[in-house]
Amino acid sequence: MAERLDQFRAFREKMNARILESGNLDIKRFFALDSRAYEAGALPVKTKELLGLVASLVLRCDDCVTYHIVRCREAGTTREEFFDAFNVAIVVGGSITIPHLRRAVATLDEVEQMQ
Amino acid sequence: MAERLDQFRAFREKMNARILESGNLDIKRFFALDSRAYEAGALPVKTKELLGLVASLVLRCDDCVTYHIVRCREAGTTREEFFDAFNVAIVVGGSITIPHLRRAVATLDEVEQMQ
Amino acid sequence: MAERLDQFRAFREKMNARILESGNLDIKRFFALDSRAYEAGALPVKTKELLGLVASLVLRCDDCVTYHIVRCREAGTTREEFFDAFNVAIVVGGSITIPHLRRAVATLDEVEQMQ
Amino acid sequence: MAERLDQFRAFREKMNARILESGNLDIKRFFALDSRAYEAGALPVKTKELLGLVASLVLRCDDCVTYHIVRCREAGTTREEFFDAFNVAIVVGGSITIPHLRRAVATLDEVEQMQ
Amino acid sequence: MAERLDQFRAFREKMNARILESGNLDIKRFFALDSRAYEAGALPVKTKELLGLVASLVLRCDDCVTYHIVRCREAGTTREEFFDAFNVAIVVGGSITIPHLRRAVATLDEVEQMQ
Amino acid sequence: MAERLDQFRAFREKMNARILESGNLDIKRFFALDSRAYEAGALPVKTKELLGLVASLVLRCDDCVTYHIVRCREAGTTREEFFDAFNVAIVVGGSITIPHLRRAVATLDEVEQMQ
Repeated sequence: MAERLDQFRAFREKMNARILESGNLDIKRFFALDSRAYEAGALPVKTKELLGLVASLVLRCDDCVTYHIVRCREAGTTREEFFDAFNVAIVVGGSITIPHLRRAVATLDEVEQMQ
Repeated sequence: MAERLDQFRAFREKMNARILESGNLDIKRFFALDSRAYEAGALPVKTKELLGLVASLVLRCDDCVTYHIVRCREAGTTREEFFDAFNVAIVVGGSITIPHLRRAVATLDEVEQMQ
Repeated sequence: MAERLDQFRAFREKMNARILESGNLDIKRFFALDSRAYEAGALPVKTKELLGLVASLVLRCDDCVTYHIVRCREAGTTREEFFDAFNVAIVVGGSITIPHLRRAVATLDEVEQMQ
Repeated sequence: MAERLDQFRAFREKMNARILESGNLDIKRFFALDSRAYEAGALPVKTKELLGLVASLVLRCDDCVTYHIVRCREAGTTREEFFDAFNVAIVVGGSITIPHLRRAVATLDEVEQMQ
Repeated sequence: MAERLDQFRAFREKMNARILESGNLDIKRFFALDSRAYEAGALPVKTKELLGLVASLVLRCDDCVTYHIVRCREAGTTREEFFDAFNVAIVVGGSITIPHLRRAVATLDEVEQMQ
Repeated sequence: MAERLDQFRAFREKMNARILESGNLDIKRFFALDSRAYEAGALPVKTKELLGLVASLVLRCDDCVTYHIVRCREAGTTREEFFDAFNVAIVVGGSITIPHLRRAVATLDEVEQMQ
């Protein structure tokens, strides 16, 4: 299980490096903005990561969901809080998000078992 | 300005009533679930409304954005917090969300002027 | 009210004519395919128009929804059947479709009043 | 082949169980609404499942498409009717849906071979 | 007609100013990246603006389409080239983009009449 | 690596054949329109394939991205031009497109290694 998360991380890191070494400066800047968006500001990190998680779920991107579940967990999100956020996501995004919710809960289970 | 918000509210209430009087019980239940999703639970109301706001921005629904701006404001969201949430939304959703951000900020300005 | 539908039809016809007179043959062919998709085949017209209506609702296109409501009605769709289709659309597409549902029901009310 | 469908079903059932045992009552209610949306009402089951299929295709969710193909088939949808519905989906949703159509037809072939 | 374009520009400029004066530095940086994406690089301005136009059409954002039509025109795009790009957009994005195509052609007509 | 591209091509060809032998004439016509959209016209092939690539990235379809990368490359697109197009796509479509960008760059690497 942890294997699936490891593969995700390895591919992510490898390809991010390939993208950043392309020499396209504006893509590099976009990646920097993406990281900064979740740093503590007027809103705390945990809230921002939850915003990223729900946005990823309603836009239905499994990789983004995986990433934000790991980050939300690191920021102290409890299982009950995750399901509250999941509920907002399926109400806003509808049943079309349910297959992504299934994979999100599988990922959450994996992340919790690793600790 | 407040006029635009009033029209939104009037049409929303009128048509919600028309929908609920249709006799379709499951649509009625969906509307109930939609309301409950933003009630205090493991996550507080303010966080849930911010989740609804960012989900609405990345899915690019002006009416939903208007609704959640009003609710976020009632839950005590500050202007700085709104812009932190807006920033997450445009980073996740891209420049295609910017026209909706313009209307969101116009709505936020109106809501703040009403108080 | 009927005025709103008339304006929609007038703009639609005027611009379709402008598009078709552009001389781009493939766009012309696409428009022909679009019309044929709702003609009677293995599935009857009414079912196909309901498919077009629900697809338009979950993709959240008000003009497309208006068009298919008129066509569904011409094909004999009852108010109860419309709400059954609306229910499928909001369950699949989530609360983000509700503002479009409100406008859809307003359109349905107008169409029914014209007869 | 049937193996792929079996894996889909097994993961779906396992994760649905995980989700429902989370104790989040509103997610449970959403799942119930999702099931009820396809029960016979003013519209028959077959029409509702076709609505679910086309909505899933234009929103491009392979798992949802797989699910509704199985259900449409159980409700008596013929191969010609499936292709009529597929045609509506690609006309509405465009060539971006074609990779999903390929997988949908592969699934339909599998489902037909199982009987 | 030109009036509609003027209103679009006035609201766009007013609200961009409101957004940039919010003090959120990362939103400011995102706006800068958005502008730079269409500057001459390995690809010429005209090609980049056409990329922006087709991306806006398939994502169905009227304001973005209006903006890129004006910019494509300034970069020397001919009516025949516009319709070639429109054709790619409706083939990729399907009939759901047609209402946006109608408004795009109305905008193109306005822009051409202003010159 | 080339293996992954071969599998994509094999499945694509096999299922396209299955779809075209279904006897649904309008789906056949849609496939023909899809091919013609990228033929030389007022715009050259390379520009049209880049339009297809960016449209596929912002709509987040990996198979479509793979297909257009191969075609763009055949039309003479350089690595710098690809990254210019990728930059437009992530600015328009946001960070939600980044997982697709990673896979796009992996595909581009594979395509370049095959030559």
